[in-house]
Amino acid sequence: MTETTILKNVRPWGEAATDVTVATGRIAQVGPATVWNGAKAVDGGGAILLPGFVEAHTHLDKTLYGMAWNPNNVGSTLVEKITNERHSKSRLGLDPARQSARQVALSVAHGSTHIRSHVDIDTEHGLKGVLGVMETREKYADVIDLEIVAFPQSGMLIRQGTKELMDEALSLGAEVVGGLDPCSMDLDPKGHLDVIFGLAEKHGKPIDIHLHELGELGAFSMRLIIDRTRAHAMSGKVTVSHAFCLGHNDYLAVGRLLDQLAEAGIAIMTTGPSGYPCPPLIRTLDAGIAVCSGSDGIRDCWSPYGNADMLERAMFLGMRNDLDRDADLRRAVEVVTTGGASVMNIAGYGLGVGDNADLVLIDGETLAEAVVSRRTRPLVMKRGKVVARDGAILFAME
Amino acid sequence: MTETTILKNVRPWGEAATDVTVATGRIAQVGPATVWNGAKAVDGGGAILLPGFVEAHTHLDKTLYGMAWNPNNVGSTLVEKITNERHSKSRLGLDPARQSARQVALSVAHGSTHIRSHVDIDTEHGLKGVLGVMETREKYADVIDLEIVAFPQSGMLIRQGTKELMDEALSLGAEVVGGLDPCSMDLDPKGHLDVIFGLAEKHGKPIDIHLHELGELGAFSMRLIIDRTRAHAMSGKVTVSHAFCLGHNDYLAVGRLLDQLAEAGIAIMTTGPSGYPCPPLIRTLDAGIAVCSGSDGIRDCWSPYGNADMLERAMFLGMRNDLDRDADLRRAVEVVTTGGASVMNIAGYGLGVGDNADLVLIDGETLAEAVVSRRTRPLVMKRGKVVARDGAILFAME
Repeated sequence: MTETTILKNVRPWGEAATDVTVATGRIAQVGPATVWNGAKAVDGGGAILLPGFVEAHTHLDKTLYGMAWNPNNVGSTLVEKITNERHSKSRLGLDPARQSARQVALSVAHGSTHIRSHVDIDTEHGLKGVLGVMETREKYADVIDLEIVAFPQSGMLIRQGTKELMDEALSLGAEVVGGLDPCSMDLDPKGHLDVIFGLAEKHGKPIDIHLHELGELGAFSMRLIIDRTRAHAMSGKVTVSHAFCLGHNDYLAVGRLLDQLAEAGIAIMTTGPSGYPCPPLIRTLDAGIAVCSGSDGIRDCWSPYGNADMLERAMFLGMRNDLDRDADLRRAVEVVTTGGASVMNIAGYGLGVGDNADLVLIDGETLAEAVVSRRTRPLVMKRGKVVARDGAILFAME
Repeated sequence: MTETTILKNVRPWGEAATDVTVATGRIAQVGPATVWNGAKAVDGGGAILLPGFVEAHTHLDKTLYGMAWNPNNVGSTLVEKITNERHSKSRLGLDPARQSARQVALSVAHGSTHIRSHVDIDTEHGLKGVLGVMETREKYADVIDLEIVAFPQSGMLIRQGTKELMDEALSLGAEVVGGLDPCSMDLDPKGHLDVIFGLAEKHGKPIDIHLHELGELGAFSMRLIIDRTRAHAMSGKVTVSHAFCLGHNDYLAVGRLLDQLAEAGIAIMTTGPSGYPCPPLIRTLDAGIAVCSGSDGIRDCWSPYGNADMLERAMFLGMRNDLDRDADLRRAVEVVTTGGASVMNIAGYGLGVGDNADLVLIDGETLAEAVVSRRTRPLVMKRGKVVARDGAILFAME
């Protein structure tokens, strides 16, 4: 249990300045603080108050952050990248526990309070990644809520034994069943979806599928996912990550897919910029679809980019989707906060009385100005405890 | 003339550490410094040394940087944006001299040593923008080289008198003839191109045309520009900015355009991310086309984004073009340095002996790592004089 804290002079969502009182890890009062015995006052300096950022798609187990720079000279196909990565993990001595902890520190410093991490499972490295990230999840439980997706990165049907490892990971406590490009990875969309929806049913857990497949192929896989989601009554429990096929150059076809996704209660994760088409953010939101975002891999064997800053991610979403209006930039901020919370089904998320005191202060004249300026975060709070200040974490790393 | 300075322990282009001696505003020696009378030594701390960044496409006259945040609620069409902007300039009391100076300071702090700025010319504001930026060009001549493009932002043929203002701006010393969407803005591609190629011929100056037109329409305008460039023997003197039509989803058609652009000696400017298709960076470079980049408008009535950091711009180019390999990221850095210098035809640009000492130090383990980390620049030098250190400018602003 933490002490009572009064955050003075903060602007919830960039609106009028007020005080927010935090007690026993929750928001106890919004407005001029009434007397609290022994309350500690923290001057918010007029900063904008948001619920903590939700990093809803990353790969904690395989970041190289903090290790020597690993020059990338990998081919451009998916299989080349995946194979290179599987081999590089051994070559570089990548330790999933150590590396995931490093990224957690980076995330917290930037104001994230929740992470959904896909974690590789394959027959070469087994459950090493999952066990490493579980170690981090336990060790840093006071500073971040961490959700693990059991992710068959190297394919499931094409690597005998992967399915059993997935099953084991879910029994050990991975919260989400992961999937990957049902057509192009396993070359057997029916077989792939049978397995992941079967695992979801067996373990009573949600699904999050990486879908990089483009155009009609991606749309085909997406329609299969929509059908399964309906058949398994999994509305609100399936996320399609990347969904590049929604960036398809066919207005009516994309509209039809969006309507079906909304009706089936399927969420979309988009990272914004990349060399691929991407879901049209405002149209997707307007269709009534829950949308979250994430850093994806940070400085790993795939890609050198990333810093775990979800405020910068909101800017990337804005740039990629040509969001120039303040109201639209607010929607991008919602994607990296309430959108992520909705997809991850986080209880007690928000700035209302009774909500968890998972909070971030951001500097900015307005919410939009804060997004484009991306200044260092003055304060990050997890369940009422200050965990980072001025961009520096306040907890020990081992 | 400036004093002699020895930059010790710097890594040109991220390669082996060495010393670089600067005398009378130029690079006098690369390698262990021999004795120089009265030379001042500066510890480069192993930072990477690059020639100064070239901001080859921005709009200095209309940034709102440093003014109160201007909420954006503008419609999405080009004409709505242009009309809103023309009216907002008066409403907000935008002073082109003051605002361009503010952006120059921001640019220099981030390591740019050269800027090409389009400057609006229209019948409502006349040459106010051009005169304001010329004032800044003169006032800050010691810290930045600034090139002005006379830019008919609100249309030329559709606003009688604009052509004459363009002519006057070029006589007053604007260095480049600007143009804008020959079809969709003036609705008369032949008429538009007659005027700008005519002005170029009359004044003996190069051309830089904004071409936002998409798909076949953009390709049509581009073919007209290619024909004119050949007919006027202007190889090496024409730039097409944005060129969204090169992001067109037709591999062979884009390839044909790239070949024609290369053969005609036309350069391309691309900013990277946006809600529009963009030229494929590596294919464009591989076709032998000079490519530069820029921030475009920074925090103006069009768009809230931008910070004048051309190292971050290299990262944006990389992300948008899916450049994961170190060698490809180096090419993105070349676009914001030597690419810009080539397009702007900057004499004495580079890191060779005899080149101008227009230099920037960037922190990074490798060039690629520096790009993705985008740390504060330790030192920026213009013609041998240190003009910024640790992200702060060392010259007075009025």
